[in-house]
Amino acid sequence: MAQSPALLFLLLFIFATKTIESTQIFFPRATHQSLIKQAKDPKLSIPYKTQFFPQLLDHFTFQPQSSKIFYQKYLINDHYWEHGAPIFVYTGNEGNIEWFAENTGFMLDIAPKFRALLVFIEHRFYGESLPFGKDSYKSAKTLGYLNSQQALADFAVLIQSMKNLLSEVSPVLVFGGSYGGMLAAWFRLKYPHVALGALASSAPILQFDDITPWTSFYDAVTQDFKDASQNCYEVIKGSWAELQAVSEQKGLAELSRSFRSCENLHSMYSARNWLWTAFVYTAMVNYPTEANFMMPLPAYPVREMCKIIDGFPPRATKLSRVVAAASLYYNYSRTEKCFKIENATDAHGLHGWDWQACTEMVMPMTCSKDSMFPPSTFDYKAFSEQCMRKYGVLPRPHWITTEFGGNRIEQVLKRFGSNIIFSNGMQDPWSRGRFQGKSFSEMKCEALSLFVFFFLEKNGTVMECPLSVLKNISASIIALATEKGAHHVDFRSATKEDPDWLVEQRRQEVEIIQRWINEYHSDFK
Amino acid sequence: MAQSPALLFLLLFIFATKTIESTQIFFPRATHQSLIKQAKDPKLSIPYKTQFFPQLLDHFTFQPQSSKIFYQKYLINDHYWEHGAPIFVYTGNEGNIEWFAENTGFMLDIAPKFRALLVFIEHRFYGESLPFGKDSYKSAKTLGYLNSQQALADFAVLIQSMKNLLSEVSPVLVFGGSYGGMLAAWFRLKYPHVALGALASSAPILQFDDITPWTSFYDAVTQDFKDASQNCYEVIKGSWAELQAVSEQKGLAELSRSFRSCENLHSMYSARNWLWTAFVYTAMVNYPTEANFMMPLPAYPVREMCKIIDGFPPRATKLSRVVAAASLYYNYSRTEKCFKIENATDAHGLHGWDWQACTEMVMPMTCSKDSMFPPSTFDYKAFSEQCMRKYGVLPRPHWITTEFGGNRIEQVLKRFGSNIIFSNGMQDPWSRGRFQGKSFSEMKCEALSLFVFFFLEKNGTVMECPLSVLKNISASIIALATEKGAHHVDFRSATKEDPDWLVEQRRQEVEIIQRWINEYHSDFK
Repeated sequence: MAQSPALLFLLLFIFATKTIESTQIFFPRATHQSLIKQAKDPKLSIPYKTQFFPQLLDHFTFQPQSSKIFYQKYLINDHYWEHGAPIFVYTGNEGNIEWFAENTGFMLDIAPKFRALLVFIEHRFYGESLPFGKDSYKSAKTLGYLNSQQALADFAVLIQSMKNLLSEVSPVLVFGGSYGGMLAAWFRLKYPHVALGALASSAPILQFDDITPWTSFYDAVTQDFKDASQNCYEVIKGSWAELQAVSEQKGLAELSRSFRSCENLHSMYSARNWLWTAFVYTAMVNYPTEANFMMPLPAYPVREMCKIIDGFPPRATKLSRVVAAASLYYNYSRTEKCFKIENATDAHGLHGWDWQACTEMVMPMTCSKDSMFPPSTFDYKAFSEQCMRKYGVLPRPHWITTEFGGNRIEQVLKRFGSNIIFSNGMQDPWSRGRFQGKSFSEMKCEALSLFVFFFLEKNGTVMECPLSVLKNISASIIALATEKGAHHVDFRSATKEDPDWLVEQRRQEVEIIQRWINEYHSDFK
Repeated sequence: MAQSPALLFLLLFIFATKTIESTQIFFPRATHQSLIKQAKDPKLSIPYKTQFFPQLLDHFTFQPQSSKIFYQKYLINDHYWEHGAPIFVYTGNEGNIEWFAENTGFMLDIAPKFRALLVFIEHRFYGESLPFGKDSYKSAKTLGYLNSQQALADFAVLIQSMKNLLSEVSPVLVFGGSYGGMLAAWFRLKYPHVALGALASSAPILQFDDITPWTSFYDAVTQDFKDASQNCYEVIKGSWAELQAVSEQKGLAELSRSFRSCENLHSMYSARNWLWTAFVYTAMVNYPTEANFMMPLPAYPVREMCKIIDGFPPRATKLSRVVAAASLYYNYSRTEKCFKIENATDAHGLHGWDWQACTEMVMPMTCSKDSMFPPSTFDYKAFSEQCMRKYGVLPRPHWITTEFGGNRIEQVLKRFGSNIIFSNGMQDPWSRGRFQGKSFSEMKCEALSLFVFFFLEKNGTVMECPLSVLKNISASIIALATEKGAHHVDFRSATKEDPDWLVEQRRQEVEIIQRWINEYHSDFK
């Protein structure tokens, strides 16, 4: 697991960036040392039974090998269910399914109201759903079967089979967050006869090809920190040059010391990625309550990080400030004596995303000059050479937009889609997006008509160029975006500390799902 | 080409039937000797240029071999086209693309009105679009890539590439007949962002799994003949026993003589298939004008066949009558001295359908006791064993309904589909369908709510259980069914002899397509 944190498709965030200072393409090294401690006991701490479904290796060819069966894991809870009541399916994404079940308490919370059957289906090639066992990641010959369309077909086959066995008349609702949210939305688009509707939380379906400006994601991360404090933004922005200077002038030993690395660093880029990861993930999980999704963190952790940065004495270096800020992310629970910066673990089994990013999930991302990260461009040639070296495959950068819709996807959703909720939180860079350009003509965001609202700031035009759907598209393609929400916060278990806007967002989700189910039953009559 | 006439997916019609008299599963042998004479000159007699598109072998995996490129043929006519005007695409089906272009003069007829670009895309593994050249049909290792989903993805990639090159703003309309009509309808369902609408002519999208009663197709063929003459029906129904008796009592030599076979027959079943094929194809192409799609035939050939059967002197055998009737099909142009009953040719390269029928296109068909054909059941076990022996694959009989919708497909189309015309002619057994049951409870047709109208006849309940969509489903899922039409008759070039109802059907098609295009342009503004 050398080259992949890839948590919630974060791998790609620097996977193919080409820094202006350096043409080196670098993979961020995993930095989740604390995750080891969260690694689950084989017994589930959540109320699900584990089952396995005999699944077809390849739904779209009939080669001899395609009919090979593998065992796909799913979790099931029928405690609240009664015959004919809905089936709520979580369309698993790039990690072991228990992790998503643990972090999607929302489904468990609302199950009694709907008497719903709960099913969490693990995505092929993650967790224990390994078509070739421990050889699954051996090469393109095995990994070749890992992609979103095969995953959607898996879901369809498993759900249909379950319906045949249990209840033909039960409506199926699919839920998913992040990449799982994209899968849920796409599933409703491609398999409307299987699922009545989808709740897609923080699903950046617009982050492909040239739909949204490539700077959008990092400009949104930047804005999160800028919103907390202008100084915080400036410190982080200035810290990268300091990092390089320290590395060049004082060497890696000194750098290792300042980063409290458990072992001597072999590259300045490890330290850089370690910081980078902390900032990006913290922006994503900028939740309103203390939470532990990626790492244990306090409420509104971006604000807390900026408090640390701003709280240093005036002469403190930028580097010392950002290391302290990043330490909040890696060590909020104050259990770490040092940081495993270069030897991370992958407790949730997320490394398959590297493969997906090298094949179909090509999400080009760059950093603008106004970003708090070092400016970068996306070099498709270097990116594809890297994929070829690593896996022996070439990416297909236009495939996702060919298969699921591209530039005019909002028109497609409007005219053709129905029963999808896109829930988003504007703190989450995967949702919000942002474009900081000098003029309208610079901007590439093509999803103007429905997604984009823009306003002027003193430094030029700043546009919200979201990565997900933030405005209602039709009566049944509904956007529920909250100003203060973060990465699929609505999917988390309800707590007493939840702010009103979050309670209200979930209430609306329940109301809409109830309406779909009512319509379904009246259609049946 | 031993085992496959497979014209317009007719192969399957007896592919898996198990006759009550005999448990032998038999493949009909090809019987299209005259087609050789129609085999096209390499130069097209139709106004299209031939081009080739570098197409991906496998859109749905990233195995090393999946990125292999093959050259997909398409025909193009830009004579009427101007930038921004529509692109009309024929989604090729199971034969060489020139044949479909020749028999879809409708698109050429309406091109000037729309200033449309015309494109006919050949289906992978047919004609010259052979991913592995002459080895394409070698085994499941190569044939494995032949299926409808890969074909739809081919269309999407080719169309998107063409739009990028020629005109981003041009609306795309897809046209298809028979299996090509299913592809056109499915393409609009799965790729609404690529095609604005579909005209699906004679597309039996309901002939899968248990949507429609399995007897529906042959009961509809039967009804065509019964409608022409009750005696005709009875003669054909009685002829199979005579055929068997002659074969057993007088031997194959005598049988060969009565069938005017060029060579001695090796099996009674060859003669049976020869008759069977003639009746089924003639019902399909029961066109109102003289035409040459499968074979040269007079107007309303079913009526003409029955005239032959009814016109014999009273003592003539049933067998002599049906052989004479079938000879109308095989020798209307009176050029044949004898018939090549066991050594047929495959001028249009249709044999790939055998593979498709053995994998995903499992369309179970049986003959009821009231059918004019020998009663038969569908033995899935025998069928799949046969496929395993022949190709080393097992069919996936529920896959098409999982992928494209099954029992409640009409609800899916209603709530989720738009801009599809299902055009049908009620003479065509692929459209009409029919269920002759004793009681309501016997019938398996599940598409009740929108497709089925039923009425009583003296012999019990007779239901129309169509194989295609015969009634409007919504304002934009439109059925245009004509009482006297046959297999995609609307797609044929207009002639002066065309009856009013056919002129009117085509007029409505043009009007609806024009409406979709107008809506598209006003959406754009």
